[in-house]
Amino acid sequence: MSDFVLDLRLESDSTSIMVVGLCDVRLSKDARWPWLILVPRRAGITEIFELTPLDQVLLTFETELVSSALKKVTGATKINIGALGNIVRQLHVHVIARSEGDANWPGPVWGFGKAEPYEDATRDEFIAKLREALSP
Amino acid sequence: MSDFVLDLRLESDSTSIMVVGLCDVRLSKDARWPWLILVPRRAGITEIFELTPLDQVLLTFETELVSSALKKVTGATKINIGALGNIVRQLHVHVIARSEGDANWPGPVWGFGKAEPYEDATRDEFIAKLREALSP
Repeated sequence: MSDFVLDLRLESDSTSIMVVGLCDVRLSKDARWPWLILVPRRAGITEIFELTPLDQVLLTFETELVSSALKKVTGATKINIGALGNIVRQLHVHVIARSEGDANWPGPVWGFGKAEPYEDATRDEFIAKLREALSP
Repeated sequence: MSDFVLDLRLESDSTSIMVVGLCDVRLSKDARWPWLILVPRRAGITEIFELTPLDQVLLTFETELVSSALKKVTGATKINIGALGNIVRQLHVHVIARSEGDANWPGPVWGFGKAEPYEDATRDEFIAKLREALSP
């Protein structure tokens, strides 16, 4: 992992809340949806199939850990998972808690409207709950 | 798998091209993008984290098999992977080949515009190439 450098756009659009085995788990700064982003700390990877088989399994389990925690904390209707990367090519996996009637429901979150910032207290409380749900 | 029944909307919007270990691999009938859909043949599953750990690993490897095959056959710029399920709740994973300048690039495919049908010959040729790329 020594030569892994986080993409600048991911760095500016999200905040790290925890590092798990393979991934940096980050909270999107867009408050419209509870939205986490997993970034495998491997250099030069764009597609999941470029990861080693072991890393693919780690990414799967870490994605599910994060999905379950997000479902538990938010009580959302549906978890949306996506690895697109059409704009930011560094591999990253979105895990988003969706609820009926949220912004653009039942459409996707990507490319919709304009990001809205969190209130500091709301964000800090959410991060605390997520860290607790993500901890063993 | 005995009580697995494919969702009616998935059945009408896509065509099965191959059954692999866990999943039915289906081609979307929307010709705007090369678009495959994996449906794990397990009854009553909505979220990936509801699958057993073994099934999660199978789904991961089958998703990557399909992604690699689709990349090889299409030469696409980027593979988009998504598990949303806001409308159809039966678990299904989208694997879509995206290229610069395609419909709604670099935005997501879901919820964008209106589906366009394949020409029969184009579809049959594409399915033949996919089956070849997916075979061991």
